[in-house]
Amino acid sequence: MATNEMYQYSLALSLMDGVADKGLPINEYLKHGDHGIGTFRYINGEAIVLDGKAYQMLADGSIKELDPNGDAIHPFAQITRFRPDVKSKAYFPSKEALGDIVSGLIPGSKNHNVAMRLDGVFKAVTVRTAAGQTEPKQSLLEIGKNQVSFTFENVRGTLIGFRQPHYLQGVGIAADHLHFITEDRKHGGHVLALESDGEVDVQAAQMYTLTIELPKGDEEFNEAPLKGNHKDLEAVEG
Amino acid sequence: MATNEMYQYSLALSLMDGVADKGLPINEYLKHGDHGIGTFRYINGEAIVLDGKAYQMLADGSIKELDPNGDAIHPFAQITRFRPDVKSKAYFPSKEALGDIVSGLIPGSKNHNVAMRLDGVFKAVTVRTAAGQTEPKQSLLEIGKNQVSFTFENVRGTLIGFRQPHYLQGVGIAADHLHFITEDRKHGGHVLALESDGEVDVQAAQMYTLTIELPKGDEEFNEAPLKGNHKDLEAVEG
Repeated sequence: MATNEMYQYSLALSLMDGVADKGLPINEYLKHGDHGIGTFRYINGEAIVLDGKAYQMLADGSIKELDPNGDAIHPFAQITRFRPDVKSKAYFPSKEALGDIVSGLIPGSKNHNVAMRLDGVFKAVTVRTAAGQTEPKQSLLEIGKNQVSFTFENVRGTLIGFRQPHYLQGVGIAADHLHFITEDRKHGGHVLALESDGEVDVQAAQMYTLTIELPKGDEEFNEAPLKGNHKDLEAVEG
Repeated sequence: MATNEMYQYSLALSLMDGVADKGLPINEYLKHGDHGIGTFRYINGEAIVLDGKAYQMLADGSIKELDPNGDAIHPFAQITRFRPDVKSKAYFPSKEALGDIVSGLIPGSKNHNVAMRLDGVFKAVTVRTAAGQTEPKQSLLEIGKNQVSFTFENVRGTLIGFRQPHYLQGVGIAADHLHFITEDRKHGGHVLALESDGEVDVQAAQMYTLTIELPKGDEEFNEAPLKGNHKDLEAVEG
């Protein structure tokens, strides 16, 4: 895949519906890029790919680096071969401020997919990590009800993620969606809130091509209603 | 592009918003397949690509075969390298019946993109052909108000098109979207209604990969609201 093209496996809507029994094998996933986020079979933890290395962040706080030819599979995942158009430094007072800051760095990008990366020291990063389905086809909303969040303070690390435009809500995830990993690669999760400690490095790239691959021969996907409402999606992925 | 992968340039939503000043050059478009539909600069007519040949169907009833290296550009277009999974014969009493007939031929396809083609004699095919914008950024809905429809009776020809799942409404066009061309390649348009004369040939293929390319450096696209409501889209593309 060329640089700064976005590849997505399956849909946020099917993940909302709890379709997480099958997925894309990690070796297929990593062919499409070096910068990505996603989840695992049975929604067991959060995936982050930075600089081509993939990690599984689990709800007990542990992290494992994944064998790129191992048996991990991804019922939902996004990735790009990230080559930033823009490199800058900025202070991020909140996760909410991130959209405007990135839009300022890449003017005219509101209707486009954007890849981004933040590196530096953060006063606080609040994350959650999905603990997995406790029954087949349990929805992401149900799993979310039991999720534990955790705030890292004065922590150095990296945030990897994407911003997608509003019209892709459900297909993907509208607005900013980031996963965090600490510099020592020992902790991390799905980012709920953040505040940087002064300025941190920010890199971003606009992506003009989005490839969506849908599950082949997955009856759960084929039968899923895929009607999930936007409020629910914002509640669990916002 | 591999066979039965769907390629789409831009969005149905931006076409609804009247973003039609720029677009994909025909030589780029035809690299992605041999079976497609779309429109032209200023929404001037309907595009159909069958067996790799591209035609522009105009509102005055005329058709021209396009030079694959000519100056035609497409502000919205879809195409695939069509290799049917299924070949059959069926009687089509109406356009509305088409969805169920194709679903019967490809079970489990309701959440997927499907390419299809019908060949044979039709008792009636009703088409419309967009007459083009009369002012910049005129919306598809406005253009649609002035469209003329025409019914061909006892006509032999080909219908080319796609079925997209409900969750892609706005990104693409949900449900069945077909363009028609007569066997003599002299008439055609966007299909509003149809009834076959007994059984006709039907071919279909399920597509698991959808690539969406968004306009680069197109300010009208970048500034478009892209909020179009589904009722309007059904009204003009249904």
